[in-house]
Amino acid sequence: MEQPQLHIIGMLHGDIASRDDAPKNYSESNRVGTIEVFSQYTEGLEGIVPGQTIVVLFWLHEARRDILKVHPRGDKSRNQRGVFTTRSPIRPNPIAISELKVLTVKDNFIEVSRLDILDGTPIVDIKKKIGD
Amino acid sequence: MEQPQLHIIGMLHGDIASRDDAPKNYSESNRVGTIEVFSQYTEGLEGIVPGQTIVVLFWLHEARRDILKVHPRGDKSRNQRGVFTTRSPIRPNPIAISELKVLTVKDNFIEVSRLDILDGTPIVDIKKKIGD
Repeated sequence: MEQPQLHIIGMLHGDIASRDDAPKNYSESNRVGTIEVFSQYTEGLEGIVPGQTIVVLFWLHEARRDILKVHPRGDKSRNQRGVFTTRSPIRPNPIAISELKVLTVKDNFIEVSRLDILDGTPIVDIKKKIGD
Repeated sequence: MEQPQLHIIGMLHGDIASRDDAPKNYSESNRVGTIEVFSQYTEGLEGIVPGQTIVVLFWLHEARRDILKVHPRGDKSRNQRGVFTTRSPIRPNPIAISELKVLTVKDNFIEVSRLDILDGTPIVDIKKKIGD
């Protein structure tokens, strides 16, 4: 099967500079940052409103893709597990999913809270959260 | 920026043959099917157990990628919205996210319920659900 190619639709701007500084995940984060959707995709944001929760897919461009087992949270005292039973950034397709709260929307910039993703990470999709 | 390439890690086998036959989303589905993880990725499943919920990312290989506004649920009586405020399969990167319940695991085959995805859809990632 042909391997699909992703289109980067935007970029995250925030103040999380390293994994050591990153919250464990979005559900434990109150960090704030800004999603820049590249201007050619702005039309896809029509209808987004402050207060809603959006599901954002990031491409973790620095993560290794050639490892299938990891120590949970990098803790070597814990037994290795298959990457597909973890949220590790290490996986064949390093896509991260975060559920973020929209604070403000201005043109193609969305200010969000609950961030757990590093500054400068490319974005590949934004979705409505089911049930919202 | 370089456009990343996905690796297809598996394939869905089920009995949903068309969008007309597909449940609205996984939260409203009791359909059952089987995830085949290609054998070179089997190690990544170590630790998966029946009863748990997994987050599965599908590549909707038949979806259009060049449209940024859609009628919700294809209902032309409703106003168009930006694709990033919907769960439409139509979007620049047609990745679907489903939260599926694991029924059985045998080698590289995972039987799941709550399916809302068409038979023959490629799979790009499987993750632990946060909070589980």
